[in-house]
Amino acid sequence: METKQALVLLYNGVVVTMDQECHVIRDGAVAISGDRIKAIGPTSQILADFSTVADESIDLNGRFIMPGFVNTHVHTSQQLGKGIADDVDLMTWLHKRIWPYESHMTEEDSYLSTLLCGIELIRSGTTCFAEAGGQHVPGMVKAVEQLGIRACLTQSTMDCGDGLPPNWKYTTDECIQAQKELYDKYNNTADGRIRIWFGLRQIMNATDQLLFKTRDIAQELNTGIHMHIAEIPYENELVVSKKGVDHGTVTYLEKIGLLRSNLLAAHSVWLNDAEIGYFASGGVKVSHCPASAMRLLGFAPIKEYLEAGVCVSLGTDGAPSNNRMSMVDEMYLASLINKGREMYISGATNPTVVPAETVLKMATINGAKTVLWDNEIGSLEVGKKADVIIVNPFTWSMVPLHDSISNLVYCMRTENIESVMCNGKWVMKDRKIVNLNEEEIVQSAMKQASNLLERAGVNLPNRMKFV
Amino acid sequence: METKQALVLLYNGVVVTMDQECHVIRDGAVAISGDRIKAIGPTSQILADFSTVADESIDLNGRFIMPGFVNTHVHTSQQLGKGIADDVDLMTWLHKRIWPYESHMTEEDSYLSTLLCGIELIRSGTTCFAEAGGQHVPGMVKAVEQLGIRACLTQSTMDCGDGLPPNWKYTTDECIQAQKELYDKYNNTADGRIRIWFGLRQIMNATDQLLFKTRDIAQELNTGIHMHIAEIPYENELVVSKKGVDHGTVTYLEKIGLLRSNLLAAHSVWLNDAEIGYFASGGVKVSHCPASAMRLLGFAPIKEYLEAGVCVSLGTDGAPSNNRMSMVDEMYLASLINKGREMYISGATNPTVVPAETVLKMATINGAKTVLWDNEIGSLEVGKKADVIIVNPFTWSMVPLHDSISNLVYCMRTENIESVMCNGKWVMKDRKIVNLNEEEIVQSAMKQASNLLERAGVNLPNRMKFV
Repeated sequence: METKQALVLLYNGVVVTMDQECHVIRDGAVAISGDRIKAIGPTSQILADFSTVADESIDLNGRFIMPGFVNTHVHTSQQLGKGIADDVDLMTWLHKRIWPYESHMTEEDSYLSTLLCGIELIRSGTTCFAEAGGQHVPGMVKAVEQLGIRACLTQSTMDCGDGLPPNWKYTTDECIQAQKELYDKYNNTADGRIRIWFGLRQIMNATDQLLFKTRDIAQELNTGIHMHIAEIPYENELVVSKKGVDHGTVTYLEKIGLLRSNLLAAHSVWLNDAEIGYFASGGVKVSHCPASAMRLLGFAPIKEYLEAGVCVSLGTDGAPSNNRMSMVDEMYLASLINKGREMYISGATNPTVVPAETVLKMATINGAKTVLWDNEIGSLEVGKKADVIIVNPFTWSMVPLHDSISNLVYCMRTENIESVMCNGKWVMKDRKIVNLNEEEIVQSAMKQASNLLERAGVNLPNRMKFV
Repeated sequence: METKQALVLLYNGVVVTMDQECHVIRDGAVAISGDRIKAIGPTSQILADFSTVADESIDLNGRFIMPGFVNTHVHTSQQLGKGIADDVDLMTWLHKRIWPYESHMTEEDSYLSTLLCGIELIRSGTTCFAEAGGQHVPGMVKAVEQLGIRACLTQSTMDCGDGLPPNWKYTTDECIQAQKELYDKYNNTADGRIRIWFGLRQIMNATDQLLFKTRDIAQELNTGIHMHIAEIPYENELVVSKKGVDHGTVTYLEKIGLLRSNLLAAHSVWLNDAEIGYFASGGVKVSHCPASAMRLLGFAPIKEYLEAGVCVSLGTDGAPSNNRMSMVDEMYLASLINKGREMYISGATNPTVVPAETVLKMATINGAKTVLWDNEIGSLEVGKKADVIIVNPFTWSMVPLHDSISNLVYCMRTENIESVMCNGKWVMKDRKIVNLNEEEIVQSAMKQASNLLERAGVNLPNRMKFV
């Protein structure tokens, strides 16, 4: 006998499905049974079919119903480090700020950092994220269980490299073993909301053995690999000099068979045409992080990726690289920055590049593909998981609504997102975070973050004359 | 006998003064008497001096107190056209969307558009703006009176040019006369909050006669000139071919003596080194509009302006060019975009360029200088007008506060601004707009904007498959 599932109706909304044909139902409704979407259609039809059996019916009065965003590159552990590395050069950023900070974190710090980050993710409509790699996956697991959203969690993994903090020296086997244990213990937990991926911090921190073993074990376990790839020209130069290939990281990864459909390539700013082709033929997915790239790395070849058929999604990166963790802001930036990039590559503006509808795909269905979960999330379709956000556009920031799809990208603010559902359960309802005491977390975060920074010995200069 | 002025105390705050030395008072207070700042200092001292005579005392519990932002380039008339020109090329943008829209506006439309825009300005902490030039200044005046903020209003002025809408044909004298009348009628009205400036839309829409007369009359009346300058390379090319100068608009304006300290140059993306020098020696002020430039124009040479000693402030431009009218977002973008520009000009990243404290200056004191009002606004100093904003940083978006000045630029959200005072009067208090019925304006704006677009005959294509 089937257990009775709660039935929720969302009606009188504008349903932006993000399905294959990008259907938008003007006066639409969605019926949700348990954790899945049971039906989508015109309000009249859905109400006729389900209104008598619904447990909860919500009149949206013309609000938007959309799939939750998928943030494909975020360092949840870095949330407590927001503001510790602004306006500094890359070496200061890494060696004097981020590494001391991260290497002094405890599991409890990581838990709190992920909770604080999770609040920002939920408020900005993110229902699934890919952790870019932190030190304490169990702390993240605990936070994600509680937050109620979906995540592909990854351990930050390095088995070599210069200047690493002393407590970060691991052998290749220790790296692999630790991740296998995390996989065994946590993969597919929290009602299936948590998946465990394998991590490679970046090519300069991975031996060939680690690359090979990661490639094979991820294939064997049918999970993904999350890696920072081709971030700066210096990385490519090192690879050329050390590995004897003619261009850089991507050329080398192609040579050793790592460019497969389960590889999530973060940033990937510095590729030549051949390498873009390798990504396309390998089915590699790219996480484009516009703010972070603009600030630290350069202009990623997004137009070329899209033309070559590479799946491009969006990520916020970590707090000290951005500092906003909102996919809403990242959509706005993705549009602006890729228009501006035309000036960089061709010397002439082209405001038609990467239009709003493309940006929306990046933030939803392409995100789902990137985290290898598009069979269940990324669009509103019957049978998929109910990861849904409700947007109220009738405020100062979004009216008038001449071109509503465009307004979702260029005018929507994080604060227009009123309610967020993941896996059929509300995680934010009418702007209130459901599963946590937000104020308590904000208070604890301030205290714990100060302690952590003191432990890490990071001192920030004053920017103004404090008295 | 002196009239008794209301005395307001804001205490227990972090006072970011933006004075010459950029003093920040950690536990500070501000005493406001009538429309002016009477005292600033440590909380203990201000309370000792004024608490017994204060009419209103507000405990800020550690919130920030800052000068209101000055938005130095905003088309308030374009707010009802938000979303009508996204992702289109420049010619479509101007001829098929913006001109039809603007030329069909009534004074009533302009009034409502300015009200709607004003709500966004106030919510994002703007207490003074420079109108970039619209058709119906009386409509704007009425709106600004009601909004309670400060403005330098400008008529959009053109006496020549190709392809102009038929109802926009004016002689040089008509242009000058109309602006003189506006000046006589409205300058220094609304308790001194409104000033009238002279407008020049851009060089391609101005005869030499109009340039000369505008230069002279603005000088005579001791007011400013607001002009779009050196927006695209084509503009410079036209000037070279028609005026016989060797570079572009700025070289020509130098030649005819227009580069004076009362000139507000909007965008000014395409200048060579000599022209940057002309701006510096003439005392011309630049309004940098990062979002709009990134989308449509290119990278303005902000670092070079600052190095040359040019006063650079920030503007949002109009809704169809951006689409956010928030100085808070524009600060974030100014930092990101000028860091990214390093890649464009030198091929290498430099995340130290245009740091947070510089961006804060642009948004406040430099804005005040740009609108020729720094004797009264732009910083919190005794004797200046009380244009003050209160920022609550104790939310998910801004904590932790390791580097609080940096957080004001990189983490602050528009929604962190809780209260806004202009000229000693609250225009937003605890996130409620004081002088207007916001909901009513939002509703009217949706209706009236649709009517206007229909009248203008602008039809937007669907971006997705609507059913």
